[in-house]
Amino acid sequence: MAQGAIFRLLILLTVASTSFSQSIIQTWPPKQALLASDGISGHRKIPNDLYCESWRFTVETNDAGIWTRVPARCVGYVKEYMTGDKYSADSEAVADDSLAYAKTVELSGDGKDAWIFDIDETLLSNVPYYTSHGFGSEISDEDSFDNWVDMAEAPAIPASLRLYKELEELGFTIILLTGRTEVQRKATELNLQNAGYSNWERLILRANSDHDKTATIYKSERRKQLEDEGYKIHGNSGDQWSDQMGFAVAKRSFKLPNPIYVIA
Amino acid sequence: MAQGAIFRLLILLTVASTSFSQSIIQTWPPKQALLASDGISGHRKIPNDLYCESWRFTVETNDAGIWTRVPARCVGYVKEYMTGDKYSADSEAVADDSLAYAKTVELSGDGKDAWIFDIDETLLSNVPYYTSHGFGSEISDEDSFDNWVDMAEAPAIPASLRLYKELEELGFTIILLTGRTEVQRKATELNLQNAGYSNWERLILRANSDHDKTATIYKSERRKQLEDEGYKIHGNSGDQWSDQMGFAVAKRSFKLPNPIYVIA
Repeated sequence: MAQGAIFRLLILLTVASTSFSQSIIQTWPPKQALLASDGISGHRKIPNDLYCESWRFTVETNDAGIWTRVPARCVGYVKEYMTGDKYSADSEAVADDSLAYAKTVELSGDGKDAWIFDIDETLLSNVPYYTSHGFGSEISDEDSFDNWVDMAEAPAIPASLRLYKELEELGFTIILLTGRTEVQRKATELNLQNAGYSNWERLILRANSDHDKTATIYKSERRKQLEDEGYKIHGNSGDQWSDQMGFAVAKRSFKLPNPIYVIA
Repeated sequence: MAQGAIFRLLILLTVASTSFSQSIIQTWPPKQALLASDGISGHRKIPNDLYCESWRFTVETNDAGIWTRVPARCVGYVKEYMTGDKYSADSEAVADDSLAYAKTVELSGDGKDAWIFDIDETLLSNVPYYTSHGFGSEISDEDSFDNWVDMAEAPAIPASLRLYKELEELGFTIILLTGRTEVQRKATELNLQNAGYSNWERLILRANSDHDKTATIYKSERRKQLEDEGYKIHGNSGDQWSDQMGFAVAKRSFKLPNPIYVIA
């Protein structure tokens, strides 16, 4: 190779390696994102979908903590998420993880191998209700929701129904632990049956004495009682962080999606 | 109104009300989603972005538990998420929530009001490293990552740098608690300074005696020591669930996004 060619090759290699390392170093943070996200005020400038995706991230990771209603600019986003294929896909993915874990559990076979399910937005979907109640944009109206519960028409979440039946076949004892109250027992049982659920060991609802407790405390206390009765709580499925926080927690807890409302 | 007209009106009202209630009842689950998600095998049939969005949901909610690497079909998705505007937007949203909470904390003013930060993917971004290491698709290579740490060139996550400075101004004592080891102390301090961080009270790294502990245990033990020293741990920011689980947990913990790797 002639000296000139070698020199040109060296130059080429130098330029290539410089731009390669620069491309790595400068990959992140992207300049565009920096401009878009200059703090809280900057959030108002970013596109709706990007804003609402991030809002949902903070809700589902519990970073948002307790919030009162879906931000006005995200109501359309939430409706699309819930009624399109994303909510179903997320629910299916959570059911897959739950089942994969369940298959690794060594069951004692004494009938005390428990899996706990929450009901609303876990076994049953209230999307038909929220469709006519603003998809989380309205402050929750207990009376109209109670009327909806009494209708016993909430459909099953298909992924949860699939998981429920597979857990039953694997030999888990299924216990339902819900924030619904004792006066709603009949309607709840009817609704669960209408939706395809059966053979639960126990349906635990809030007693009068539980009314002033947060969901976290009420559910922790009831899980503790189950443990005291000898149940091993292998798994726990719920759409709220208050389903799985507190004490007497399950060995593994699974968070189902819910960007419509939060329960402390 | 003629009888025929009244009859036609009644028919119209009946049809309208029927289709209205049906439209509510049949809103969910959408037929399309049902077809797309017929269990685990069905997931392979759904579009990549939908699958990978749901995979990320299960990672960020801890439903996925411990996993070894990003699914092959989601590597492109993860790269786009991390280097586009979504990761930055999510990070900003988490910083906003953290700051909103921090502003509600009543500080004692005795210097013991602590906020704990993790380092990797919390204060500093290793995206430049993962850009040349497959974005989580490769099994992690400790040697090459240690070399990257020694370079001390990881950039700040802008949202975290903003939060860090605001917390400092509010009067929080900032403590850094990282899975990095004592041999990486100098490089870590240099990198933090290079990236714009300063004035932390303490930088806690893994000692030799911590090497066999999970991150959850190691970090819980160190938080417990801080509590025993009189620190009130008001807040905790980390990208891993192992940053905030275990014992001696902060009053509020904030999960930053990280779909590249998981640490038990």
